[in-house]
Amino acid sequence: MGSQAAKAEAFRRLHHGPHVLVLPNAWDVPSARVFEEAGFPAVATSSAGLMVSLGFPDGEEMPRRELAAAVGRIARSLVVPLSADVVAGFGRTARGVASTVRMMLEAGAVGINLEDRHPSGQGLYPMATQVRKITAIQRMGESLGVPLVINARTDALRLAPGSEEDRFREAIRRATAYRDAGADCVYPMGLNGAESIGRFVGALQCPVNVMVRTGLPPIPELEKLGVKRVSFGPSASYAAMGLLKRASLEVIGRGTYDALLEGAITHEELNLLAVPRRPEGPPAH
Amino acid sequence: MGSQAAKAEAFRRLHHGPHVLVLPNAWDVPSARVFEEAGFPAVATSSAGLMVSLGFPDGEEMPRRELAAAVGRIARSLVVPLSADVVAGFGRTARGVASTVRMMLEAGAVGINLEDRHPSGQGLYPMATQVRKITAIQRMGESLGVPLVINARTDALRLAPGSEEDRFREAIRRATAYRDAGADCVYPMGLNGAESIGRFVGALQCPVNVMVRTGLPPIPELEKLGVKRVSFGPSASYAAMGLLKRASLEVIGRGTYDALLEGAITHEELNLLAVPRRPEGPPAH
Repeated sequence: MGSQAAKAEAFRRLHHGPHVLVLPNAWDVPSARVFEEAGFPAVATSSAGLMVSLGFPDGEEMPRRELAAAVGRIARSLVVPLSADVVAGFGRTARGVASTVRMMLEAGAVGINLEDRHPSGQGLYPMATQVRKITAIQRMGESLGVPLVINARTDALRLAPGSEEDRFREAIRRATAYRDAGADCVYPMGLNGAESIGRFVGALQCPVNVMVRTGLPPIPELEKLGVKRVSFGPSASYAAMGLLKRASLEVIGRGTYDALLEGAITHEELNLLAVPRRPEGPPAH
Repeated sequence: MGSQAAKAEAFRRLHHGPHVLVLPNAWDVPSARVFEEAGFPAVATSSAGLMVSLGFPDGEEMPRRELAAAVGRIARSLVVPLSADVVAGFGRTARGVASTVRMMLEAGAVGINLEDRHPSGQGLYPMATQVRKITAIQRMGESLGVPLVINARTDALRLAPGSEEDRFREAIRRATAYRDAGADCVYPMGLNGAESIGRFVGALQCPVNVMVRTGLPPIPELEKLGVKRVSFGPSASYAAMGLLKRASLEVIGRGTYDALLEGAITHEELNLLAVPRRPEGPPAH
């Protein structure tokens, strides 16, 4: 696990550099490899993108062995670090979640996204339960010799009780507890708008992850606000499927192929995405 | 296999209607489901798109069991017929190719694309060998009670010896033999341009498949030329990866997310692509 440990440390350092870490979320081998070739220093998986690509809705319906197999395919194709989204960890107990994380580490991931939302969609896990899970997965990484990078997501902004302000405070309370339990980065799902982002970052004093969505300030502004990590979330999946929808409507409606042909990569480029880049060599194209 | 037989017959009839069959090539569940929702009456797989999505280059390096598993995932997600590309059939003998096709039929496909190019890339299989393979896969379909729709691809336009005219005549000779062996449709890879298409269609007098590429006449013109099937080939994969490349360059270069956000589908739409449409119900969205 030597090179995996080094990858984990390199990935952790990316959260503490002068610039925000921009983390694209992939769902299969070529989407991950396109991001790597474009120059991103690390890649993450999107649970929605990955699961739907294999015929499962976002959540925990997909067997975790299949999730680990998909993470393994992507990890083996990359030279840069890979972070895996495990939703709420496929387990109600800390032990169950740690065994899921073990599978992801063995598949080659060096980072984990773990959320505190019940996978049935019925509210949040108790904060103390989530803290135990975070502690357990950190120890699991240590036991395997991999200093796992933990991104602790809270869904309190949407699912906590009370007013908007109550939910915001609960998100800060949970994120603080997750940070103190050993999370490297906290990820308040739904955080948007410069003022809210600035307030959250100021309260946490640790790396905060925001997600690309309509209204998210551009990256230079996020840097000024002190954001350390911005992830695509499932947006690249949404965009790719939107393109296929537009291309379909064009072919059916007008009988032309512009959306299929404009800006497309070549067969040779696609094929190169199936194989890993050589670690120390130049980009494959 | 009753409903599969009916699907095969429905798919066959689409090659003999008043309009050209436009067949989009998918590589995973959501790409197939987007095409189905857009209104295409059938879907095919792209070997390049599907194989690269799972970390294998286009060809026959991917284990055929994994190919069958991927075809099965897509077939189970669709209500419309699915045609599977099996490259050159993963076998040198007719028996080997028939066993590959059996796996695809058992996975739910009702159509097969089979090419006459040696998977090592070293030229063409002898015409007589390819004819035996086509006969064998047709019989395999019959033995399973599925009137398989066979699209016989020839790579003679590129790989046959001699002048351009020699290669064109060899493509016609091979396509004619494949038609006479029981292929429902013939697919001369690389056929492009109105004059060449018209000449080929006139010589064959059976359904001819052309592929979307730069310079392909628009669909109304293809219909006038007598083309009965136009497939996307891997163009939708190329376009989707091109979009990710553009989005990456925009995020890295300008710090904005327009390519990720414009024309994207929603989380709810993506999730609906993971589950099959009800056979007789309205589209899911």
